[in-house]
Amino acid sequence: MPLWKIHHPVGAYTPEEKKEFSEAITRVYEAIPIPRFYVVVMFEEVPADSFYVGGESHDKFVRLQIDQMARTLPGPVIREWWVKNLDQVIAPWIRDRGYDWEFTITEPPFDLWSLQGEIPPPFESLAEKRWIQDNKATPYTHAEKLPVNLALAPGTTGD
Amino acid sequence: MPLWKIHHPVGAYTPEEKKEFSEAITRVYEAIPIPRFYVVVMFEEVPADSFYVGGESHDKFVRLQIDQMARTLPGPVIREWWVKNLDQVIAPWIRDRGYDWEFTITEPPFDLWSLQGEIPPPFESLAEKRWIQDNKATPYTHAEKLPVNLALAPGTTGD
Amino acid sequence: MPLWKIHHPVGAYTPEEKKEFSEAITRVYEAIPIPRFYVVVMFEEVPADSFYVGGESHDKFVRLQIDQMARTLPGPVIREWWVKNLDQVIAPWIRDRGYDWEFTITEPPFDLWSLQGEIPPPFESLAEKRWIQDNKATPYTHAEKLPVNLALAPGTTGD
Repeated sequence: MPLWKIHHPVGAYTPEEKKEFSEAITRVYEAIPIPRFYVVVMFEEVPADSFYVGGESHDKFVRLQIDQMARTLPGPVIREWWVKNLDQVIAPWIRDRGYDWEFTITEPPFDLWSLQGEIPPPFESLAEKRWIQDNKATPYTHAEKLPVNLALAPGTTGD
Repeated sequence: MPLWKIHHPVGAYTPEEKKEFSEAITRVYEAIPIPRFYVVVMFEEVPADSFYVGGESHDKFVRLQIDQMARTLPGPVIREWWVKNLDQVIAPWIRDRGYDWEFTITEPPFDLWSLQGEIPPPFESLAEKRWIQDNKATPYTHAEKLPVNLALAPGTTGD
Repeated sequence: MPLWKIHHPVGAYTPEEKKEFSEAITRVYEAIPIPRFYVVVMFEEVPADSFYVGGESHDKFVRLQIDQMARTLPGPVIREWWVKNLDQVIAPWIRDRGYDWEFTITEPPFDLWSLQGEIPPPFESLAEKRWIQDNKATPYTHAEKLPVNLALAPGTTGD
């Protein structure tokens, strides 16, 4: 999480620009925080004669598909803010270069996701914290699935 | 909305045929009506040795992935009709040329969609109507998010 | 169902290896059972300078996207088992060759799916059974949409 597929005109970006673009995207998610290696970005060149918008070939169009597994965006306020936020993040590589663009975000199910043979640990769990620190997927125990900030409600333990 | 990805054998279509195919797809959505520029079509060649159906390489297969953000198809009758309708639309470029084919439609969330930095306006709103006429995404006001056909229920305003 | 898209480094697999990999995937679904031809596998080469993980170019990464239309995985136990099962199936072509990897599974709506102009028949129906035997999509009657194991509850017919 997330997977970004960036469909762009042939030759739109140099390898250095692709790296910078992917770094900018990575920083957005790193700040949540989630592990850096959750962020996968793929660039795909689409020739103008294979790219149509409204039935017309378009040679300056960037179409992004974003799959976010790790978090469901809760509620309309946060969802709108997130969309606006991403539009700002991508602007230097798209709007500011004169491209037209469109993106969509999907939220594939969290529990049908696998990374290096591990089902990623719960949000804000001890294991996730360790993955963030190590920037690496490693096996974790059941106890590490507990939240970093564990707050049992009063009375839960009896007494 | 929508995004059509058409995975097809190498050399299956000329640029002219791709344009005609994308125009036919665009007309389907234009008739709803929604803005023409909502319709994005991408063609992707897949070499036979990278395309497998039932474990066998297939050199005459077209696999379409369709993402429809702008409208949720309501109810089983309309959903089946829509699938049948699309099969008719694509037939001249696929069935009638002897290709095997398969398509799936997904409905990504409407509110996690951005177009030229704008979250597209509600269905059948004043802003959407303007976008259809202009065939272009432009900023819109809150008032333009109201439906073209505004009907307040009797008694809503008191009295 | 399903569609597997396998994004891999340039030259990672020979055509023979792609075929074997797709056969291994096909066997998983054939055992459910569902028709062999439901299983479509596409291989896509991604150059290292277009593939970024955590903001770094990665030349040994395999990213799989799996769309499963035909069955919804019911309940957490089966869902986890399924993910673990697939990780075993793909290991010889990925983990055992020293690649890093990640996969996600989505479950597109069953009723917005078309195959050779037919909406696939219900799970475990007479028509599905025939499709499995023929390994081919053909027209079917309404009566063939009934389950192979038809059990009407006592009292359903009155009496």
